Amino acid sequence: MRYCNRCGADVSFIVPAGDSLPRFVCNSCGHIHYENPRLVVGCVATWEERILICRRAIEPQLGFWTLPAGFMENGETTTEAATRETMEEAGAKIIVDAPFAMVSIAHINQVHLFYRGRLASPDYAAGEESLEVALVAANEIPWNELAFRSVRHCLERFLEDRASGRFQFHETALTPLASTP
Amino acid sequence: MRYCNRCGADVSFIVPAGDSLPRFVCNSCGHIHYENPRLVVGCVATWEERILICRRAIEPQLGFWTLPAGFMENGETTTEAATRETMEEAGAKIIVDAPFAMVSIAHINQVHLFYRGRLASPDYAAGEESLEVALVAANEIPWNELAFRSVRHCLERFLEDRASGRFQFHETALTPLASTP
Repeated sequence: MRYCNRCGADVSFIVPAGDSLPRFVCNSCGHIHYENPRLVVGCVATWEERILICRRAIEPQLGFWTLPAGFMENGETTTEAATRETMEEAGAKIIVDAPFAMVSIAHINQVHLFYRGRLASPDYAAGEESLEVALVAANEIPWNELAFRSVRHCLERFLEDRASGRFQFHETALTPLASTP
Repeated sequence: MRYCNRCGADVSFIVPAGDSLPRFVCNSCGHIHYENPRLVVGCVATWEERILICRRAIEPQLGFWTLPAGFMENGETTTEAATRETMEEAGAKIIVDAPFAMVSIAHINQVHLFYRGRLASPDYAAGEESLEVALVAANEIPWNELAFRSVRHCLERFLEDRASGRFQFHETALTPLASTP
């Protein structure tokens, strides 16, 4: 960030009076540009025993499999975000049951929130951001071709909870993968 | 938003190619300025049976009581945000137990997330954003002087769950209050 989005003047990265962290502050009008983590909201949705997954048509992780999910938009609730993303990416209408997993990923300033839900019908179709969409049984999940660690976490907890007969709400945090020498 | 924060040129509020919602897009460099909901994270923290509350020293709702909570910062987890906010606003060190309540407030582009936790010791002190801090019993909660509806929701669910002996994770959405004629 180099310019104030209110007046167009230069900004400086400084700690505002009364604050404890540096922010981009306009050198002319004084406007403070806060930057905050973003919510990525999605759903592990099932039809009978099968789970809805999408193969990504966009970067990052193009070609890898994921759960339908995306950035929450202004003006919607978390439930609405999960429902919209599942329709956009997988062409599937869902009934949302409950929040299921929340994953903080501090190094990329994101919080991933997954609901669990059910397809209203066995209809689905790849949206613009998906190469293909599938309903897979537990033993068909492409574990080695999953796009994101948060998706793996969510699927693992989902299968465990389903096997135990009791769904809970799961929270965790991911740290950067160790770099290999 | 009037100016691009990368190049300083004018922006237009238009639907970018491949998108479905209008965004502020730079007329010169094409940078898209996304705006997304913000997470407000806090804690209902107890010492023995008493609940930690703060009286706000800042707007909005100056002078009203709230749970320690504030905007999540980049680079932290949700648990870290709850811990930091409780230290900043109430001078109290907490042990976080579990996520407790999540409240979508679409009309102000916020999601409020409350943990439940316990004070590590009965020490607390008003931070810069608080006029005073108190540990109150259930029958001392100032219901008519609470700052926010999400705080009321959280406190009501907390007392119900504590009475029932079983804490759950609660999710809800708030809509604008009806205007009175």
